[in-house]
Amino acid sequence: MANISLKESLFGRNQTEADSNRQRFARAGLVVVNLLSSPGSGKTSLLEQTASCLKSKKRIFVVEGDLETERDADRIRAAGLPARQIQTHGACHLDAESIDKALSDVDLSGYDLLLIENIGNLICPTGFDLGESVRVVVASTTEGDDKPHKYPEAYHGADVCVLNKIDLLPYVPFRVEAFLAAARRANPDLVFLQTSCTSGQGIEAWCEFLCRLKPARA
Amino acid sequence: MANISLKESLFGRNQTEADSNRQRFARAGLVVVNLLSSPGSGKTSLLEQTASCLKSKKRIFVVEGDLETERDADRIRAAGLPARQIQTHGACHLDAESIDKALSDVDLSGYDLLLIENIGNLICPTGFDLGESVRVVVASTTEGDDKPHKYPEAYHGADVCVLNKIDLLPYVPFRVEAFLAAARRANPDLVFLQTSCTSGQGIEAWCEFLCRLKPARA
Repeated sequence: MANISLKESLFGRNQTEADSNRQRFARAGLVVVNLLSSPGSGKTSLLEQTASCLKSKKRIFVVEGDLETERDADRIRAAGLPARQIQTHGACHLDAESIDKALSDVDLSGYDLLLIENIGNLICPTGFDLGESVRVVVASTTEGDDKPHKYPEAYHGADVCVLNKIDLLPYVPFRVEAFLAAARRANPDLVFLQTSCTSGQGIEAWCEFLCRLKPARA
Repeated sequence: MANISLKESLFGRNQTEADSNRQRFARAGLVVVNLLSSPGSGKTSLLEQTASCLKSKKRIFVVEGDLETERDADRIRAAGLPARQIQTHGACHLDAESIDKALSDVDLSGYDLLLIENIGNLICPTGFDLGESVRVVVASTTEGDDKPHKYPEAYHGADVCVLNKIDLLPYVPFRVEAFLAAARRANPDLVFLQTSCTSGQGIEAWCEFLCRLKPARA
């Protein structure tokens, strides 16, 4: 019973902070995307490609989450976008409070789009709303097509699924149709996109998708 | 303070149960290997290959951990080994108690080697000793060579690192030397092996390594 109360209290506090973030984002007219995935599925590469494609059209800010290192924020800055790194030093997910702190001195009205790269973990981040408009689960063709069966909450709680590394399909035992069926079983409303950050395939469609997103109303 | 006490209490209880498992394993003369990795790095494929290579030489039992589904235990049984599936239904790691429960009715003296496939997660399983003799972190060449920098505890706490999917090296931007240097920085004592479950490369060396392991003394 004590465990359940603690969990409820933790999620309850996060939800209050997520709602507060969402109101702040809405007042700034900001679209906010929370990207979840396994380690190494290519989230940072996808954001680098997004920077190349969209930085002249949209004002974009990036928040990077990792246990350690500033590496991903450095990669995003090198790609031409402002970025803030959150280092959790062992914690397995971002939460709404960490996002609020990371953005405390940022004038959000100067941006159209906030892209948040969560910790590489298909489990723990699923329970923590950050105040995002849209949640994206990034899968890669090298992870196997059974992952939506094994990590259903990552797919159930997402709005969009990006299947990345499609350039590697000739070399890996990944059945796209089986993957899509498994993901749809976890979430029939999921929007699907397919990308390769190596060949550039699908990047334009991903960026067009981002451009069509509308900010929440304050 | 309350959080710290709770965490200490959680880890303390797990350690007591892990020590109890370790004694039971030692009495049975059993070598126990705990495999950690990201989702989709190929742990189950590695165990399937291990089954093919070793099932006529060693008496092996497998415990599979997943959030949902019996799929991995089914794959191991199809490969000719007895297996028990733990479904955590959302929990992000195995703990010593779950191993004890999964094996409660198994006569361990009938086996030489127990292989435990942990939940696909590079973070949370690192804090939970299961009573294993050896901890193995499995990395794959498709995850990027920077992961030991970002998930240092997974490497720091392991005895062995298996770099899997080396057949894909020609197609991915993975620098083996940079990976090894990063992993050694997290853990100078790490033993390295390289495998491909597709081409079979390195599987024999991995199996020879397993055969050389000695059980702990009771």
